[in-house]
Amino acid sequence: MVDTYEKKALALHKKLRGKIRVVPAAPVRNRADLSLIYTPGMAAASRLLTRNPKAAREYTGKGRMVAVVSDGSAVLGLGNIGAVASLPVMEGKCAIFKSFAGVDAVPLVLDTQDTDEIVETVLRIAPAFGGINLEDISAPKCFEVERRLIDKLDIPVMHDDQHGTAIVVLAALQNSLKVVKKDLKRARIVISGAGSAGTAIAKLVHSAGARHIVIVDSRGIIDATRHEAHKKELAAFSNPEGLRGGLQEALRGADALIGVSGPNLAKAADIRLMAEQPIIFAMANPTPEITPEEAKKGGAYIIGTGRSDYPNQINNSLAFPGIFRGALLHDVRRITEKHKVAAAKAIAALVKKPTAQKVVPDMFDKRVAKAVAKVIR
Amino acid sequence: MVDTYEKKALALHKKLRGKIRVVPAAPVRNRADLSLIYTPGMAAASRLLTRNPKAAREYTGKGRMVAVVSDGSAVLGLGNIGAVASLPVMEGKCAIFKSFAGVDAVPLVLDTQDTDEIVETVLRIAPAFGGINLEDISAPKCFEVERRLIDKLDIPVMHDDQHGTAIVVLAALQNSLKVVKKDLKRARIVISGAGSAGTAIAKLVHSAGARHIVIVDSRGIIDATRHEAHKKELAAFSNPEGLRGGLQEALRGADALIGVSGPNLAKAADIRLMAEQPIIFAMANPTPEITPEEAKKGGAYIIGTGRSDYPNQINNSLAFPGIFRGALLHDVRRITEKHKVAAAKAIAALVKKPTAQKVVPDMFDKRVAKAVAKVIR
Repeated sequence: MVDTYEKKALALHKKLRGKIRVVPAAPVRNRADLSLIYTPGMAAASRLLTRNPKAAREYTGKGRMVAVVSDGSAVLGLGNIGAVASLPVMEGKCAIFKSFAGVDAVPLVLDTQDTDEIVETVLRIAPAFGGINLEDISAPKCFEVERRLIDKLDIPVMHDDQHGTAIVVLAALQNSLKVVKKDLKRARIVISGAGSAGTAIAKLVHSAGARHIVIVDSRGIIDATRHEAHKKELAAFSNPEGLRGGLQEALRGADALIGVSGPNLAKAADIRLMAEQPIIFAMANPTPEITPEEAKKGGAYIIGTGRSDYPNQINNSLAFPGIFRGALLHDVRRITEKHKVAAAKAIAALVKKPTAQKVVPDMFDKRVAKAVAKVIR
Repeated sequence: MVDTYEKKALALHKKLRGKIRVVPAAPVRNRADLSLIYTPGMAAASRLLTRNPKAAREYTGKGRMVAVVSDGSAVLGLGNIGAVASLPVMEGKCAIFKSFAGVDAVPLVLDTQDTDEIVETVLRIAPAFGGINLEDISAPKCFEVERRLIDKLDIPVMHDDQHGTAIVVLAALQNSLKVVKKDLKRARIVISGAGSAGTAIAKLVHSAGARHIVIVDSRGIIDATRHEAHKKELAAFSNPEGLRGGLQEALRGADALIGVSGPNLAKAADIRLMAEQPIIFAMANPTPEITPEEAKKGGAYIIGTGRSDYPNQINNSLAFPGIFRGALLHDVRRITEKHKVAAAKAIAALVKKPTAQKVVPDMFDKRVAKAVAKVIR
């Protein structure tokens, strides 16, 4: 079954030879067409841009083009597979950008995994683009790459593994809390994983008002004794009660478990440690931190995963297409925490009456990208 | 009139907001589509590429994508206008790539004009591409950038201002010599201009068999007394009679004048110095080295320009789309002098009976890109 499926996917990739195409925006049939879009017509646009480079957003594709940039160092479920092998992922993302939000996106996979070189390269190719979607870059490098690019560029830069995921998790969490009639401010939230996604989720959930966040990584509950910069940063606003131990200590009495770490980390017994009507988002792909079946055995009330074969698919394609669409439409140069919280609210609001079986809209719900884009302004 | 025309071109650029679009190669309508082209289907392709990176040509867009790369340092007719202002040119080129040869091309304009940084950046973004079209990079920097990239990459790299132009000039020259019944080996050929185009034309015409080439730049006829590397290189195979002086000295008894320098460099009187039935390609754009009217007054027998409003438009879009199409189709890693000579012959051969009014095929002749692609193997 898996074999047949893999074969089908491979056959499609081979047939397509690339999942995107580049096409002219206007036909080039004759000299009249060519003289407008190429020489000598383009000279008029080039002269205008020489005087006023900012007009590039109006007269070129800079106002619609996003670069999907990766070094292939942390590809979902596959690890550090490098530039070329990550290309199918980036192409797929570009196809989604256009299909979901009309955004023109181009995959750029880099033949370097060095922080300085990634930053340098993106700065140099930036002039043609209206946004940079960083993708599948390993932590903690991804934090520095993103921060430096945001500082130096006047176009939006977003590492989607961090913020796309965080936005959709926050949307799902808000609707889940609504279902179980709990309040974000008082909810006890455990995050398993302190990589790019876990870190961003912690920060965003905190920005949205959560005050009891406990983050657990492979070494246990994160607290002020940690040395790495981004874990120190997490410790500063999390674990208010100074808990010690591992996942089980963190889960005792918790309202929600958000897993962005790896397969099979929890059992039914762990879920039984949690508060009433526990919320479980087990998002490791393809094998979640705990299977929905096992979570249910432990009494999980709401279960979300990254997978399409269970209810509540928490997938960042609910967020990134609309985020960039909105930024491009409204000339937003920087995606702030406020934008992200607003995007999460917009996504959550599309589920009129959330239930345990439906805390996020369907990925193919055409309203999503528009609703998200609307609040990125 | 010019104003109206400029206005029309600007209005079109503003309407289009970018002259290319990126579209999915297959529809993304539902979960079934998405699970094949994105997660988890893409993982099958990524795993395959992790084991065998060379399969990227079959399973990704690497086999069809060309990057059109410029630093905006030498844009036709506009000079050093920089990255953003050169974007309309590169986008136009990408539109032509697709329209003429079905090649998917993406514009990358670089926020650097430093030789090392250009080389470094192109090396780093190369994994997603099957070819690199360098464009509008100033001489002599363009020679080093191209040479270093060819040395280091296993995909074809071509600076089109050099070789695209040279190929089409050679095609036009061969057909012109046929019309006037002269032989390339014995023809006395004068090239005005020793920038990127002039240098490449001299080399290619020499590769094709010409033995009497004289190159003139702003300082006069190039000979062994020159110091710059690329002019020394030109002196080594040109000016066999050791001529001294300027354009007029060079033109005495010449069979062909190829102008790739700048507007209004020659008069009817200069043409009168040439041999019988002189061939004049005056390719500076938009104002040629000598107007066709003035050249005719001096006795020019065959006249070509870069312009669409005169016969014999010598335009590199006759060459570059087919060159890259052929290289991608036949997995050619390096465009050699032999390929270029063969491409010129293929273009020339499409004009069954050349006349003074028609020495090159029409730019919109659909056979051209195919005929060129056929010989790049």
